[in-house]
Amino acid sequence: MTEEAVQTRLVERQVVCLREEEAHRRDDVLTVEEPLEIRIGDEPIAVVMRTPQDDFDLAAGFLFTEGVARHRGDIDAISYCPGAQPPNQQNVVEVRLAASAAFDRDRLKRNFYASSSCGICGKASIDAVRCQGAPLTGDFQVRPQVLYQLDEHLRAAQAVFARTGSLHAAALFDVEGRLLVLREDVGRHNAVDKVVGSFVRRQQPVPQPAVLMVSGRTSFEIIQKAYIAGICVVAAVSAPSSLAVDLAEQVGMTLIGFLRGRGCNIYTGAQRVA
Amino acid sequence: MTEEAVQTRLVERQVVCLREEEAHRRDDVLTVEEPLEIRIGDEPIAVVMRTPQDDFDLAAGFLFTEGVARHRGDIDAISYCPGAQPPNQQNVVEVRLAASAAFDRDRLKRNFYASSSCGICGKASIDAVRCQGAPLTGDFQVRPQVLYQLDEHLRAAQAVFARTGSLHAAALFDVEGRLLVLREDVGRHNAVDKVVGSFVRRQQPVPQPAVLMVSGRTSFEIIQKAYIAGICVVAAVSAPSSLAVDLAEQVGMTLIGFLRGRGCNIYTGAQRVA
Repeated sequence: MTEEAVQTRLVERQVVCLREEEAHRRDDVLTVEEPLEIRIGDEPIAVVMRTPQDDFDLAAGFLFTEGVARHRGDIDAISYCPGAQPPNQQNVVEVRLAASAAFDRDRLKRNFYASSSCGICGKASIDAVRCQGAPLTGDFQVRPQVLYQLDEHLRAAQAVFARTGSLHAAALFDVEGRLLVLREDVGRHNAVDKVVGSFVRRQQPVPQPAVLMVSGRTSFEIIQKAYIAGICVVAAVSAPSSLAVDLAEQVGMTLIGFLRGRGCNIYTGAQRVA
Repeated sequence: MTEEAVQTRLVERQVVCLREEEAHRRDDVLTVEEPLEIRIGDEPIAVVMRTPQDDFDLAAGFLFTEGVARHRGDIDAISYCPGAQPPNQQNVVEVRLAASAAFDRDRLKRNFYASSSCGICGKASIDAVRCQGAPLTGDFQVRPQVLYQLDEHLRAAQAVFARTGSLHAAALFDVEGRLLVLREDVGRHNAVDKVVGSFVRRQQPVPQPAVLMVSGRTSFEIIQKAYIAGICVVAAVSAPSSLAVDLAEQVGMTLIGFLRGRGCNIYTGAQRVA
């Protein structure tokens, strides 16, 4: 693998590195997350959030495993769409199928399920999200000592994780670290939807100020959902993607990663950490 | 949380527990994964793979964070669809919106992206997958000593993971543990599609016999994609979901989890491990 190849998947970013009560700035490396629109001819078939690299492999494999192009020779050519506008020149892939390929549009639709998130392309969907509301203005602070307890509180409240090792959790805490609601799911984004939905069903707004803690990593999708729910601080056990950080910055959210033990990285909105 | 609640998310299953060269059977606990179809009235809006529990929270939160039901009072009622057939009585949720809720179907469609996998419901989609081809018949064996090296080989080959802590990998190995192809992505299923696509693009079948190794957990989606590609052995660093194991069993796939150090759990198809 060439260094050039690796570079398409990584982006550097300055973060505030917090250890105990001490903070310093340093450069951090993030995994790039970008949307890829897959077209058959000029018809959009799917948008997947992916790490740019091996995009033609992804398009070919996606169409194969989804049953669209199952036979040798079904795919004539794959190329980036020449008409895509910045920043999406490499986010739209056109697949040309052979005349012999039996492309059943209706069957395809039955075999896909709609998932949450995003529109057609990274920039456009970020803009679309921002159009739905103003930047977050929550003017409050969380103490590091409170943050450092959240991971432990999350694990203690998770009845299942310890038994199967495969369930994600999302939990809302107040700024004193008191658990407000916790939900679990095989999908991180589902766990967040369940937390938000627990208030929606009671016709209550999501409490403010509060911190949403999620197990695992943070993707664009998680940040988008938290933003729509008006949550100003999102903390995670693992790393955020590049697009998660971009969106958090644009909507004025505080995004914390690698929250483990007595330390964490603050990617955006550090003013909300005391 | 009541014990009853926890039970809906866990299922027991017998596995072959391999440590060094010794195998014994024991009961293991899996996280339940099932599809949930969300309807507005009688119109299906989305199918998400989820862990059954807090389903109404999930439906309400999903519609809220996707911008469908954004205002207090938009949701009139949520219930399980009384017409759903076994085993899906609790896999279809109907949301009734208030007359005042402005439900813009076109906007909704713009805000969703198609992702891979599944049809409407767990059993139906598993059947649909099986209809696409015969059960896997690959008649070969892998030695435990080969399996035990895969995790290390995967990590060694991953140029990015060590630097960001947030990239999944999928890699195809031959039965002697030689790396054939490795791909990385923020999404596990994308990494698998990239591996498969690397052969599809060259108009080659996915090599047999081979082992697909994935970082993280295995979901229904991963097993479905591997099956379509004709891969007989899937191994993962972490746990599989209940539906991943169900599907692997039905299609005759060998599914290995918790492959770490000098041990692993074999969930299905143990005859392919020497």
